[in-house]
Amino acid sequence: MFYSPVHHLRKSFVNFGPKPDAMIDTLLNHRSIRKYRSDPIPGTLLDRILKAGIRASTTGNMQVYSVIVTTDPSLKEELAPCHFNQPMVTEAPVLLTFCADFNRFNQWCRLRGAEPGYDNFLSFFTAAIDALLVAQNACIAAEDAGLGICYLGTTTYMAAEIIRILALPEGVVPVTAVTVGYPDESPGLTDRLPVEAVIHKEKYQDYSDATIQKHYHNKELITTNQDFVKENKQPSLAHVYTNVRYKKEDNILFSNTLLEVLKKQGFMNNQ
Amino acid sequence: MFYSPVHHLRKSFVNFGPKPDAMIDTLLNHRSIRKYRSDPIPGTLLDRILKAGIRASTTGNMQVYSVIVTTDPSLKEELAPCHFNQPMVTEAPVLLTFCADFNRFNQWCRLRGAEPGYDNFLSFFTAAIDALLVAQNACIAAEDAGLGICYLGTTTYMAAEIIRILALPEGVVPVTAVTVGYPDESPGLTDRLPVEAVIHKEKYQDYSDATIQKHYHNKELITTNQDFVKENKQPSLAHVYTNVRYKKEDNILFSNTLLEVLKKQGFMNNQ
Repeated sequence: MFYSPVHHLRKSFVNFGPKPDAMIDTLLNHRSIRKYRSDPIPGTLLDRILKAGIRASTTGNMQVYSVIVTTDPSLKEELAPCHFNQPMVTEAPVLLTFCADFNRFNQWCRLRGAEPGYDNFLSFFTAAIDALLVAQNACIAAEDAGLGICYLGTTTYMAAEIIRILALPEGVVPVTAVTVGYPDESPGLTDRLPVEAVIHKEKYQDYSDATIQKHYHNKELITTNQDFVKENKQPSLAHVYTNVRYKKEDNILFSNTLLEVLKKQGFMNNQ
Repeated sequence: MFYSPVHHLRKSFVNFGPKPDAMIDTLLNHRSIRKYRSDPIPGTLLDRILKAGIRASTTGNMQVYSVIVTTDPSLKEELAPCHFNQPMVTEAPVLLTFCADFNRFNQWCRLRGAEPGYDNFLSFFTAAIDALLVAQNACIAAEDAGLGICYLGTTTYMAAEIIRILALPEGVVPVTAVTVGYPDESPGLTDRLPVEAVIHKEKYQDYSDATIQKHYHNKELITTNQDFVKENKQPSLAHVYTNVRYKKEDNILFSNTLLEVLKKQGFMNNQ
């Protein structure tokens, strides 16, 4: 099996020579994995991944995040609708939910007689940054060990329900979730815009119609993207996004539910 | 020199044997670097770092981010006050500003006759997640190549001024910035809470006074943290945070300026 954990754990074990680019290879070879084998992740490996996670930069070394490690099948089943019932949520052995968390920090401050002032939008955003850097570190550590991951963008849409199921107290908001497990598929690399499309030298150089045309040209030519347009009976790939995948009315609905969650979890006291 | 780029580029070049843990070592050995040599970063290396950056997961493969690569000394000088005049902003050869960016995507949609609905809070947050995952990927690629990095939390405080200086159009908001260069210091690892302090098994387990006490015990004992308390003439480390470093009045001020920026950049049309 290509994805046998023994052969895949570290490519350098197999090659037994210097692999100067092993690490950048891990980054360059990232694929989202949506099909997993049922094998559990060894506890020691999961510990290493989480330890690598928490070495990420954190604002003022406050570590204002928490990671919920869910492996219980019935709990994953309960969470599945929050992630639009994507099968990987129940099939992956581990679901990591990364949360902005000022609850622990606030409790520490109060225990020491200090009055925390972190019930506002800036503090939420600071904690969200912390949580996302930890998430990406953990994902890279997981992939480097031969595991596959997939980010679940649904987390912010369905935050209120995730808060209920995972018993997140005030001061805690889920910002992303990731499925982790041994891959049972080997998908190709997803297309990306050319690097120069997303990089600006010195200052922002706004786009002309001609540069947009140039940057999106290859993306629109890719067969899978063209098939996607046909399947969805849309005039263009852009229409698949605006009319089918990420519609204005859904974005408005989820904007308001997310802002409501921030308020309910105590992060919108900005006066 | 310990930090010579030649010797440090890949440890495995020097050791010439299998380095099964080279990659996780990069994650585990992260230090924020605040002193840099003046050596520029070779263009090919910077390209590799940015290429590794854009392989990060992105919502629906929309890539709704931009990276501003600032190397011009006068522009870094102009940006320095936005980052509270921390010397590393002008001293590091490269300043990367990572932005949530729906401008490019919106322009593409409009060019194809599709009407984008991404002028709302959810879309901002989606784009911010995208930008932060790219940032962390780029940082890891940089560190793996022997470069040092430091995140600048000031980016969200001073977003309005950064928008002006970097000419960011509507639909674009800076979410973090990172200094990058060859390290001219070799600081020790920063302390972290024990992993079990930030991990919750299955669901969130709220903290008791006793668990808070246990998790923060070592942090409070560390000499540099105790010195920090004395220097700031505060009763405890927690008070250094609440009274000196991250004060309620500052958080409220910056919450409101950040929300104002989101509105001005066209991300708060949630009706």
